[in-house]
Amino acid sequence: MKPNDIRTLAENLVGGDRRALARAVTLVESTRSDHRRTANQLLGEISAYTGGAIRVGISGAPGVGKSTFIETFGNHVLTQGHKIAVLAVDPSSPRSGGSILGDKTRMETLARNPATFIRPSPSGGALGGLARRTREAMLICEAAGFDLVIVETVGAGQSEAAVADLVDVFVLLLPPAGGDQLQGLKKGIVELADIIVVNKADGDLARPANQTQVDYQGALTLLAKGTAQWSPPVLLASAIEGTGIDAVWNAIGDCRADHSGPDGISAKRAAQAKSWMWRAVEEKLLAQVRSDAQTGELIASLEQQVVRGDKSPSAASEEIIAGFSLWKSDAGS
Amino acid sequence: MKPNDIRTLAENLVGGDRRALARAVTLVESTRSDHRRTANQLLGEISAYTGGAIRVGISGAPGVGKSTFIETFGNHVLTQGHKIAVLAVDPSSPRSGGSILGDKTRMETLARNPATFIRPSPSGGALGGLARRTREAMLICEAAGFDLVIVETVGAGQSEAAVADLVDVFVLLLPPAGGDQLQGLKKGIVELADIIVVNKADGDLARPANQTQVDYQGALTLLAKGTAQWSPPVLLASAIEGTGIDAVWNAIGDCRADHSGPDGISAKRAAQAKSWMWRAVEEKLLAQVRSDAQTGELIASLEQQVVRGDKSPSAASEEIIAGFSLWKSDAGS
Repeated sequence: MKPNDIRTLAENLVGGDRRALARAVTLVESTRSDHRRTANQLLGEISAYTGGAIRVGISGAPGVGKSTFIETFGNHVLTQGHKIAVLAVDPSSPRSGGSILGDKTRMETLARNPATFIRPSPSGGALGGLARRTREAMLICEAAGFDLVIVETVGAGQSEAAVADLVDVFVLLLPPAGGDQLQGLKKGIVELADIIVVNKADGDLARPANQTQVDYQGALTLLAKGTAQWSPPVLLASAIEGTGIDAVWNAIGDCRADHSGPDGISAKRAAQAKSWMWRAVEEKLLAQVRSDAQTGELIASLEQQVVRGDKSPSAASEEIIAGFSLWKSDAGS
Repeated sequence: MKPNDIRTLAENLVGGDRRALARAVTLVESTRSDHRRTANQLLGEISAYTGGAIRVGISGAPGVGKSTFIETFGNHVLTQGHKIAVLAVDPSSPRSGGSILGDKTRMETLARNPATFIRPSPSGGALGGLARRTREAMLICEAAGFDLVIVETVGAGQSEAAVADLVDVFVLLLPPAGGDQLQGLKKGIVELADIIVVNKADGDLARPANQTQVDYQGALTLLAKGTAQWSPPVLLASAIEGTGIDAVWNAIGDCRADHSGPDGISAKRAAQAKSWMWRAVEEKLLAQVRSDAQTGELIASLEQQVVRGDKSPSAASEEIIAGFSLWKSDAGS
């Protein structure tokens, strides 16, 4: 793509053109290296137009009613005049998989509203790459004027930490159930949550939902987030009946407002951006080491020796670095 | 150090010589690059003699009675004929700091017993380096015939994950107190624990200790470790009265025996060794990038641009990699 074309794409995107939006998101989701370069140029062009959205992560195990919740929550926020983008990060599902079809069906009214944009998870690549591409799609959506970006994850424990590191507020949905039924919840997820919502608090489940709320409030008091000032509330909601949705929306606002300091949320975002830069450096360096023909064989052999206990991890790491450095100087000479 | 000297040091170490032990531990703790090379050679020499110990991590916030617990626990295990090494990982305290002096005083009988070896935290360097040096000191102690290695950490949240990745069983000590008094407990620590011990369960504190046990049992049921088979027990102990200590020792044995598969605990250790190798590769690559004169200035400027939002983290990371690679080829040509 020529510089002029990129500039035109950026202008159309900022102007609110839906086709430019779809094209830009496809571009940042691509793993092709020429697309990566173009995507970086595009992100440079639009950077002045990004950052305007409330960024919300929504996570929860399959069956918790995530899609229905996002549908109800989204429609509620739409009535207040917001424009909503819903992006998904799901390392387990290829783009053509069943879950996205299901999502779109379950978010029917949201999907049909012209003020929304729903995008399934990019396919392929490692989790770090998936999350990075979702982060860039989020910036594209912000440039296109969406002022609420929802990033949905599956709650299986892999993607949550990365998603928590790209949103302002991380919401965890729980089913109304006791300890036994919660075994699908992976460790660490509750600790990432800024807000916990017990969904399906309706009908016969209203009572167990209430008990779950009390249990989690107790557990969270015990596992207090150390020095953090924000104490995650545990809320009740029913996506089907539409109850408790407004309280979740208010809690999101409170949580964002809670970020102290003169810059508020932008200080958190600046720290996130810096951490993403170093994640990317790390990821690329390791990818280079792993894909290097000369270190490749060496790595396999060293891993074996380390696993057998014949070589210390430290000594093995030095051999890998040495092998890699050697290759680099050969290439340059 | 000449190869012959290293071999002699290894022989004396394996033979149980205390001065060889002290010298070897000092060597692996050093950050000097020539010492690092010698240390790697020494670790190679002794590798056949390592792995024989039960490796236990003990963590807990200041004031929980960690030193007293280790003293009582250690003396209990000594009566069964074991040899005990106690190593500390404390990123917050320089070697000459007060906490180590305090530790040694509080572990008086343990420190005087010839079947024990107590070593304060190595000083200086990043956490990753500290933990790696502690890991190597642990191997040295194993070669010297210690069959229980206790790695003590301060429970401030920084070092726990690294320590959990170098021991067989991770024990978390808690004070007998409700949610309010537990605010010093950093997030994620409870999730690392294989065994939780409510200490100081004596006198007036017996009742609150009991309540703390019940509360944590409830919280842990809610926050069940997903698919993990081992369910962390919550035990009561009094280091001062010596009660509950045997139950902790038994639970450590049960937890170790719980690691399934034909190789038992050695499969966990092999995975840990592999993960340490990659941690070391990552750490060294990043250190090279950060310390490189040519990328150094570039990094400072790029970090600023990323924080201000003028450049995407992804684009900045590519410039850092490009700058680094260029330097490497220059050096080689």
